[in-house]
Amino acid sequence: MLTVDEALDRILAEARPLPGIATPLDETLGRVLAESLTSDIDSPPHDKSMVDGYAVKIGDLDQEEVELQVNEEITAGQVPTLEITAGTASRVMTGAPVPVGTEAVVMVEQTEQVESDSGQRVKVIRQQLDPGAHIMAQGTSIRRGDQVLQAGTRIRPLEIGLLAEIGQTCISCVSIPRLAVLSTGNELVPAGDIPAAGQIRNSNGPMLSAQARRCQADVVSLGIARDDREELEQRIAVGLDADILVLSGGVSAGVLDLVPAALAAQGVTEVFHKVELKPGKPLWYGQADRHDRRSHVFGLPGNPVSSLVCFELFVRPLIDRLAGRSRSGMQSRQAQLKGHFQQRGNRPTFHPAYYEHVGQGASVEPVRWQGSADQRALTTANCLAYFSAGQREFTPGSAIPVFLFEAEDD
Amino acid sequence: MLTVDEALDRILAEARPLPGIATPLDETLGRVLAESLTSDIDSPPHDKSMVDGYAVKIGDLDQEEVELQVNEEITAGQVPTLEITAGTASRVMTGAPVPVGTEAVVMVEQTEQVESDSGQRVKVIRQQLDPGAHIMAQGTSIRRGDQVLQAGTRIRPLEIGLLAEIGQTCISCVSIPRLAVLSTGNELVPAGDIPAAGQIRNSNGPMLSAQARRCQADVVSLGIARDDREELEQRIAVGLDADILVLSGGVSAGVLDLVPAALAAQGVTEVFHKVELKPGKPLWYGQADRHDRRSHVFGLPGNPVSSLVCFELFVRPLIDRLAGRSRSGMQSRQAQLKGHFQQRGNRPTFHPAYYEHVGQGASVEPVRWQGSADQRALTTANCLAYFSAGQREFTPGSAIPVFLFEAEDD
Repeated sequence: MLTVDEALDRILAEARPLPGIATPLDETLGRVLAESLTSDIDSPPHDKSMVDGYAVKIGDLDQEEVELQVNEEITAGQVPTLEITAGTASRVMTGAPVPVGTEAVVMVEQTEQVESDSGQRVKVIRQQLDPGAHIMAQGTSIRRGDQVLQAGTRIRPLEIGLLAEIGQTCISCVSIPRLAVLSTGNELVPAGDIPAAGQIRNSNGPMLSAQARRCQADVVSLGIARDDREELEQRIAVGLDADILVLSGGVSAGVLDLVPAALAAQGVTEVFHKVELKPGKPLWYGQADRHDRRSHVFGLPGNPVSSLVCFELFVRPLIDRLAGRSRSGMQSRQAQLKGHFQQRGNRPTFHPAYYEHVGQGASVEPVRWQGSADQRALTTANCLAYFSAGQREFTPGSAIPVFLFEAEDD
Repeated sequence: MLTVDEALDRILAEARPLPGIATPLDETLGRVLAESLTSDIDSPPHDKSMVDGYAVKIGDLDQEEVELQVNEEITAGQVPTLEITAGTASRVMTGAPVPVGTEAVVMVEQTEQVESDSGQRVKVIRQQLDPGAHIMAQGTSIRRGDQVLQAGTRIRPLEIGLLAEIGQTCISCVSIPRLAVLSTGNELVPAGDIPAAGQIRNSNGPMLSAQARRCQADVVSLGIARDDREELEQRIAVGLDADILVLSGGVSAGVLDLVPAALAAQGVTEVFHKVELKPGKPLWYGQADRHDRRSHVFGLPGNPVSSLVCFELFVRPLIDRLAGRSRSGMQSRQAQLKGHFQQRGNRPTFHPAYYEHVGQGASVEPVRWQGSADQRALTTANCLAYFSAGQREFTPGSAIPVFLFEAEDD
């Protein structure tokens, strides 16, 4: 039987980021650049003033106090028309271009306006300014033609600001992986129905869809298929249009477990069945290649805990890989075990648990539930605690690896 | 001048979660429950088998080996029709209801099918089973009428599974805050345009919109308003339909700073102007009350760093509060300063910086940029490093509080 790492290696072996697709700027948040981008502008586009003040010649500041003739006033968005020469200054606002001939900008706080018959004048006291003081030179931040963003970069609000600055409004981003979810089982009815005797509502389907949406997959729900070979095959055929097809139920050893046969009939080749893992041992994984496009197919065990665990351990890293994200899967941490944990069987266990970070320390407490279908108890979990095979007893205070469902601040 | 904490207190003083709105189950991910929810079912809905096996009377297992008459086979979704009596058994699949009279379920691995003339029979070896072994009793996880989810809960995939199980397909969730972004300034052109002399592209607008989307706000872009009183007032009037109106630019001391006057004319009352903070000192905040609904209005300084910092420190916690999230704002950490940092002026500084968590330690390195409009350098930041007022020199290795833009695994 494959180990968890071996199984994941098989899944990711040939998985590559999906092709790029043109994406409007305001839909790029969280996406990954499929191409490197260069700037079509210098930034700043002109020598610009970083303060409200007066553009001057440095030589004019040598005297105890000097009155300069004010040529003009330049606000952001305007263009200077007059050159700065000895004895003259121009009023400039923050962000505005400074005139030709400017050597430095004096902050407005160190000046005083003077009204006179010969137009506006400004009084400036003696000060030592370096050439270029309070000026940001053209192209300091970006030179036209610079490569400013690399393919593979994940786009945050800061990158969106930069994309706007360099005039990119339609950007090639790695396509969003499409994922189809198909729940199987005669006992299932949709969440909106009232279950008859022997029936239960389909909770796995909505949970798996939400797990996939949290990883920014584009989710298609294929509803519930009866344990009927023809119905299964029809829905599987539709699901194979997606990059990933996730089936829930129908892969353990019961009499009605038709899923592997239905998948084979639809051209899905088994890569592995069963993993050294608890819960989730019956996991099935296969691939179908059609028209140069691969579909990855997962058959997840039907109980909610197995389903949750298998998705996080195996499906999530694949979504991340296809989406072009460099980090993938769950964030891991070490935490101190609260209470005892007793391991049954000899498979490594990923047990839903509650992780808490307090001050410098972190603790983890396995969720105690009544059975594998205890959805209510499961909602108290925020991570999987990992208990390695071979060891039976884990004592309070043991250091345990945990894998967080969500980033720590959620 | 207000401190950062005082300013935030004024903003949040009367801010409450928005009213609930009916939301389809598959749109509830990340939302917050506006009402507590009770279950309309027992879970499990029947005494159910947790394994594939045979439902039996315990007394029948006392002998070295016994052959039992098999009444029927019950798969998940079926209903038992025959009672278990001494000497009989029924085949049950995982999840299926067990028949009336069942005392325990024997795992299929410990049985052997026997063909006989008198119908199907099963051979069972002696074993000690407690009453109820391998059975999950009706209502163990949830009793009908139990309150299973509390108002205020943030909905993750696990909660979506539970909502589906209890039949909730249209759920009252706290409304999504609506946020309008208006950029101001004669120098600005849209990202899709080629800037003429003296002009720059509007990068703040797209960045602020993305910052708001990252907090799951519903964003309306109002484009760019010239520094023109009438145009500003028209756009502000539209923006006041949102829960939050964010203006970028027009609140520092330049000659064309018309924004506060235009806001006052539109019935927005100033709550404060200026905060003891670097960058971001010119922050303006006011409120407008119309038809029992409050709009929060922020005038952010126009340079990208101030704009970024003010959004994260003041707007983000307000979005979180209106959205009903209990934790709000940025995640904080301690980290060791890399290199020297010199504080100018006497305001506390929130400096864009790069935080790195390696092994047990964490480091932070302030971004070095060429000026307040250096969008390119800014993209190397993933946090704000906090340098308290009063101290001028921070030496390498100093412990510095940092505030992360995104949860640590992003």
